[in-house]
Amino acid sequence: MVVILYVVIVYDVGVERVNKIRIYLKQYLNWVQNSVFEGELTEPEYMKITSHLKEITDESLDHVICYKSRDKRYLDTDEIGTRKAEISTII
Amino acid sequence: MVVILYVVIVYDVGVERVNKIRIYLKQYLNWVQNSVFEGELTEPEYMKITSHLKEITDESLDHVICYKSRDKRYLDTDEIGTRKAEISTII
Repeated sequence: MVVILYVVIVYDVGVERVNKIRIYLKQYLNWVQNSVFEGELTEPEYMKITSHLKEITDESLDHVICYKSRDKRYLDTDEIGTRKAEISTII
Repeated sequence: MVVILYVVIVYDVGVERVNKIRIYLKQYLNWVQNSVFEGELTEPEYMKITSHLKEITDESLDHVICYKSRDKRYLDTDEIGTRKAEISTII
């Protein structure tokens, strides 16, 4: 059985790596807020992404937190205010 | 029975409200990253905090997401890189 994880990734990284990380995460997850992505992943996808994030971040300067829940139902969400449009990625 | 929620709050708010929100959330939760707090709350505390956040944010400009899990065990966390020291709050 394929386990689908519900994942939230938040990051605080050097400005020179922000776009690289945003472009990478956009392939797998939904942008929901500045420096916050969320969505569903399989366990292998999750492992691949966290492994790749280790490669493209500078572990001495950057900080990434990956929250994962075995089921979206275990993670309720309340939003206050207005979800902004994503700032277009400058490549 | 008191239910303890595990809560993660992420926010993207106008610069003039950043300190107010940070100071408020620090009373209840742990700062873990720029614009990210987490910790345990009772349901009434959670209701009080989300209600107060609605008052101190500008809902047309700001965006706050509150993730809550019924149990910390339902929410695994992986961290990449270095947790930074909190930038001291300028009052």
